Amino acid sequence: MFRRLLSFDEAERVISRYIPAGPLGVECVAILGAFGRVLAEDVVAGLDVPSFDRSTVDGFAVRARDTFGADENSPAKLRVGGNAVVGKLSRCAVRSGVAVGIVTGAPLPVGADAVVMVEDTEFKRGVLLVRSAVVEGSNVMRAGSDFKKGEVVLRRGAVLGSAEVGVLAAVGLADVDVFVVPRVAVLSTGAEVTRPGGKLLPGRVFDTNAYGLCAAVVESGGVPVFLGVFPDRAAVIRRALVKALACADVVVTSGGVSVGPKDFLPGVLGSFGEPGVVVSGVAIKPGKPFTVAVVGGKLVFALPGHPASALLVFRLFVRPVIEALGGRKPRGFVEVKAVAGARMFSAKGRRTFVSVKLKRDERGELVAEPVPVGLSGAISTLAGADGFVEVAENRMFFDAGDEVAVKLLKECKV
Amino acid sequence: MFRRLLSFDEAERVISRYIPAGPLGVECVAILGAFGRVLAEDVVAGLDVPSFDRSTVDGFAVRARDTFGADENSPAKLRVGGNAVVGKLSRCAVRSGVAVGIVTGAPLPVGADAVVMVEDTEFKRGVLLVRSAVVEGSNVMRAGSDFKKGEVVLRRGAVLGSAEVGVLAAVGLADVDVFVVPRVAVLSTGAEVTRPGGKLLPGRVFDTNAYGLCAAVVESGGVPVFLGVFPDRAAVIRRALVKALACADVVVTSGGVSVGPKDFLPGVLGSFGEPGVVVSGVAIKPGKPFTVAVVGGKLVFALPGHPASALLVFRLFVRPVIEALGGRKPRGFVEVKAVAGARMFSAKGRRTFVSVKLKRDERGELVAEPVPVGLSGAISTLAGADGFVEVAENRMFFDAGDEVAVKLLKECKV
Repeated sequence: MFRRLLSFDEAERVISRYIPAGPLGVECVAILGAFGRVLAEDVVAGLDVPSFDRSTVDGFAVRARDTFGADENSPAKLRVGGNAVVGKLSRCAVRSGVAVGIVTGAPLPVGADAVVMVEDTEFKRGVLLVRSAVVEGSNVMRAGSDFKKGEVVLRRGAVLGSAEVGVLAAVGLADVDVFVVPRVAVLSTGAEVTRPGGKLLPGRVFDTNAYGLCAAVVESGGVPVFLGVFPDRAAVIRRALVKALACADVVVTSGGVSVGPKDFLPGVLGSFGEPGVVVSGVAIKPGKPFTVAVVGGKLVFALPGHPASALLVFRLFVRPVIEALGGRKPRGFVEVKAVAGARMFSAKGRRTFVSVKLKRDERGELVAEPVPVGLSGAISTLAGADGFVEVAENRMFFDAGDEVAVKLLKECKV
Repeated sequence: MFRRLLSFDEAERVISRYIPAGPLGVECVAILGAFGRVLAEDVVAGLDVPSFDRSTVDGFAVRARDTFGADENSPAKLRVGGNAVVGKLSRCAVRSGVAVGIVTGAPLPVGADAVVMVEDTEFKRGVLLVRSAVVEGSNVMRAGSDFKKGEVVLRRGAVLGSAEVGVLAAVGLADVDVFVVPRVAVLSTGAEVTRPGGKLLPGRVFDTNAYGLCAAVVESGGVPVFLGVFPDRAAVIRRALVKALACADVVVTSGGVSVGPKDFLPGVLGSFGEPGVVVSGVAIKPGKPFTVAVVGGKLVFALPGHPASALLVFRLFVRPVIEALGGRKPRGFVEVKAVAGARMFSAKGRRTFVSVKLKRDERGELVAEPVPVGLSGAISTLAGADGFVEVAENRMFFDAGDEVAVKLLKECKV
């Protein structure tokens, strides 16, 4: 256990070596339930959208040329030769001197090249007076002007938001191929760890990690599979891991990875054969005991037992893996610049993550106030934080007043 | 139909008058499925977390005073009087001159006030040598240091992210009261509107709005109830609205709200009695025909038929209502400053929303490039946009090079 700790960057590199080359798989889902999913293929328009020249107003379809020079005082005079309705192609035709009534969304009749708005017209003794000139294409949405047949309308990897789902519908797709959502098994270890909801025996603590981690899996675009809490016994934990590996694409445990006599996890992880444990501690704070193994080709992340450390290490190292397996581009962190509200120390030689709360000072400047941390990585410190500041391995500290980059942990407006 | 259009702010005020005073209701959910939900009550810790003084390292529980002055050359010498394990209170006691072995997470034995790390100790002829002094509280997480019994750990209205779910677990809650998710009925109107998935008859278009809007409902924290596409016939649409009002808290329709002969919707909405239609067109672009009615105490939003207009108006006016009904603080928009990449015009007297794509220019400056818009509010313009710039009613334009505020429509990193 006295191996040199890997640096943050080294740990990241080692992990990336064991991420499967592509997403896990592809499934077909109805677009009505596709919100937030990731496209597994380029989507090509199978038709022009719209598929016909379409009026964008209520009025009269005309030949633009017939209106040239028309104004309030010398209106163009046209005969009305029928009406174009929505939902079917018009049987009427527009010739020189003829207009056809039309409503918004209706196909332009043959021969027409523009639409005059109803507000610019008047009927007088059976004649349509057009009081405003239009040019070719006025008030017409051309066939294919939204999408052309054969055009790529959305790219593989696109995350389907409301506009993207609208695009899929517009080109007539009722379902679509998306990447399978990675399944992430979550289990806790520790004789003192008790499931929430019951009475707490003396000397015990409620399981905080598994629940926070399951939520973090959802947040990362995965599906959590919660397996429960397991006592610190090698045989029991080994069985739990076998079960986890059978039902999930990634396994996340918490607890059992410091150097104490009860910390069986690295030993158990090593017992599955090569490559076994590939990261055994990382030079970061919090999160130093972070351990990673590869078992049967799957990544097993053994997170520290302290809740705030577990969630932070998850966010830094596990979320990008879930994103990759699900075909998502890594979202990383949204960063804002702020002024350090107090000195932020680094742990000598370890990349240090200082939880901060963002505030505006009286001059309107954004200030990053460190959240007081107990020794413990208490969950309260993370729940109270808007984000964190990274202090590099080779830096002593940021001083109060220094500009710092805050990586946001939640959507926040300040 | 020749009423004066309401301004954006007036429309917002009228709508807000009809939003019920509080959230819809409260339900109890398991914390494992509570991610993203909104707390309906302040959560008070029912116990100290942790509920006992807890070691944060592997080592020896001691009286700090016994180690004062200890260093590499003159270690303190202590007798080891047993071991404290995790999961139960220790039966051992620490007196002056006595240490008790302890592992991470174990309760501190009676009499101890600090823990010496195992790395700072050595056994020699049955005597424990302590080579580093500790002070009271060293390597101990005090009872109640994460949360104190009776402390409010999360406030009503908090959105449950991973850290918040962890907090609920830490205080022992297996389930929690959250606000009910608003149900939003979505229906489309128009004889030319066809459900995606089939063949498109000539003169018809695929229903784009309902699918995009259902996704937007999810994005807003609601549950969509998709009712289908209905032809432009007053009796049919009235029946659909009755069904929608019976099963949902909010109703959203699209299409059927311009001034054409087929636009029955305002009439139908008025037929339900007072207050009926409360907004009949708004001085915005796009989205002018936007109509709002109140039927049986519920808000009915009749959005324009053009997909990009429908989605934008939804985002501006409907999402805040869904948030309010679900007990969410309005999230509004994340704004970034950028330089206008081209002149952006306003529609005279109407607040204009110009879709933009964000880019970095060669000097690294953030540039907002207007997305070319057809006459139509084509869905492609919205799908290609990162956000929009608002041009106020009383402004002619933003010129290329002006600083503009871009309201983001999607999480984006540039």
